[in-house]
Amino acid sequence: MADPTRIWTAALIVIGDEILSGRTQDRNIAQVATWLGVQGIRLREVRVVADDEAAIVEAVNILRARNDYLFTTGGIGPTHDDITVDAIAKALGVGVEVHEGARALLTDYYATRGGLTDARLRMARVPAGADLIENRMSGAPGIRHGNIFIMAGVPSITAGMLDSLTGTLEGGLPLLSETIGCWVGESEIADLLASMERSHEGCQIGSYPFFREGRTGANFVIRATDPVVLNACTADLTAALERGGWAVTAGGI
Amino acid sequence: MADPTRIWTAALIVIGDEILSGRTQDRNIAQVATWLGVQGIRLREVRVVADDEAAIVEAVNILRARNDYLFTTGGIGPTHDDITVDAIAKALGVGVEVHEGARALLTDYYATRGGLTDARLRMARVPAGADLIENRMSGAPGIRHGNIFIMAGVPSITAGMLDSLTGTLEGGLPLLSETIGCWVGESEIADLLASMERSHEGCQIGSYPFFREGRTGANFVIRATDPVVLNACTADLTAALERGGWAVTAGGI
Repeated sequence: MADPTRIWTAALIVIGDEILSGRTQDRNIAQVATWLGVQGIRLREVRVVADDEAAIVEAVNILRARNDYLFTTGGIGPTHDDITVDAIAKALGVGVEVHEGARALLTDYYATRGGLTDARLRMARVPAGADLIENRMSGAPGIRHGNIFIMAGVPSITAGMLDSLTGTLEGGLPLLSETIGCWVGESEIADLLASMERSHEGCQIGSYPFFREGRTGANFVIRATDPVVLNACTADLTAALERGGWAVTAGGI
Repeated sequence: MADPTRIWTAALIVIGDEILSGRTQDRNIAQVATWLGVQGIRLREVRVVADDEAAIVEAVNILRARNDYLFTTGGIGPTHDDITVDAIAKALGVGVEVHEGARALLTDYYATRGGLTDARLRMARVPAGADLIENRMSGAPGIRHGNIFIMAGVPSITAGMLDSLTGTLEGGLPLLSETIGCWVGESEIADLLASMERSHEGCQIGSYPFFREGRTGANFVIRATDPVVLNACTADLTAALERGGWAVTAGGI
């Protein structure tokens, strides 16, 4: 059984000028975060960096040292702006080599697609000593080197790589959550939320306001690793809100 | 006229457990990035951090020092998990004070909404010496302190705050871009892209593959500050792709 006091953490580096220019709406942060939660690993921090070697090296070396796992997305394709493998190898102080397993995968994948050109062979390059992460969507695999997981930028490909990693990483107790919603301004129940969190050790309560159809509401997310604690806090907060005259929607609004 | 050699940069800190848990899909990165681009300011790096004072302080102090501007989103509401103002004040080494202009705004806003309670007054607290950023959507203003811009987490409110800042920040020449798309595997034209970028000084070419309906395609984004350079590179790349037998869709696929 997992040690309930051990919290496993991960960081994510999203690599790509297209995110920083606003051209592309990132979808990997939410997808990696959600997947990690199920594995019992908490996403502690994310950085979005440009296709720039120095920026990648800095982020990799800080984040891999202070988290159990480091994930990256983006920059592992065949074109000139795909520099992730070289930058991570530099950060690790290792060379770059063609992974023979990756070469075999790509040879097979491109056998009916025009053959393995030099550009395509770039996608078999890994930091020396790395293993592969299965790509269930297309040809080029992801890469694992120690506690670093190097994945694609295209969200559907990243999803397949995460799927192939499911259940393979050591984690702790998953952080469970319940959501309830009210048509209430959060400023009206700020004190209630703070006292409810204080009186339920092991729970965190997040308050997320929204504005819809000219009305003010908020969803409250209660998080805990212990389901008994989680349910007690959720029930107590629900009862307190209802005593205050606010109708509570289980699951959030 | 703006100095064409001066590049203005910004960083963004997205503050919030809800992003790191995967519960909420961030939309502020793309919106801030796009807005900055129009102001002639480049978003150079983004960090997503938890509702955690130490994490916010670390990010603020590193990023404000090495960028012209620092933006933050999230954590400026009235509840216990809204700690952005206190954390930024700590990073700056200044106290927290109630801004009298913000108090007046909130008094007015809540006059017909139950009055200015202690919880609501929390939203008038600023790092000492700060100015306000107009909130065109709801009551609580954003905050400016030197080169730091503290904004809401709710994207529609952030949008209003950005709107009120439009044209007020010094920037350089906007980075212009053109997008063209092809139904081509990017590995087939990787060498062409690299040589095209090399032969057009001042241009960057990004390659963004996608998979739709079982087919492989890619969009190519050409970026430059000089419209003449941009148009020449776009035209040359389009002509080269068409010579290779690929139909090019202007504006991207």
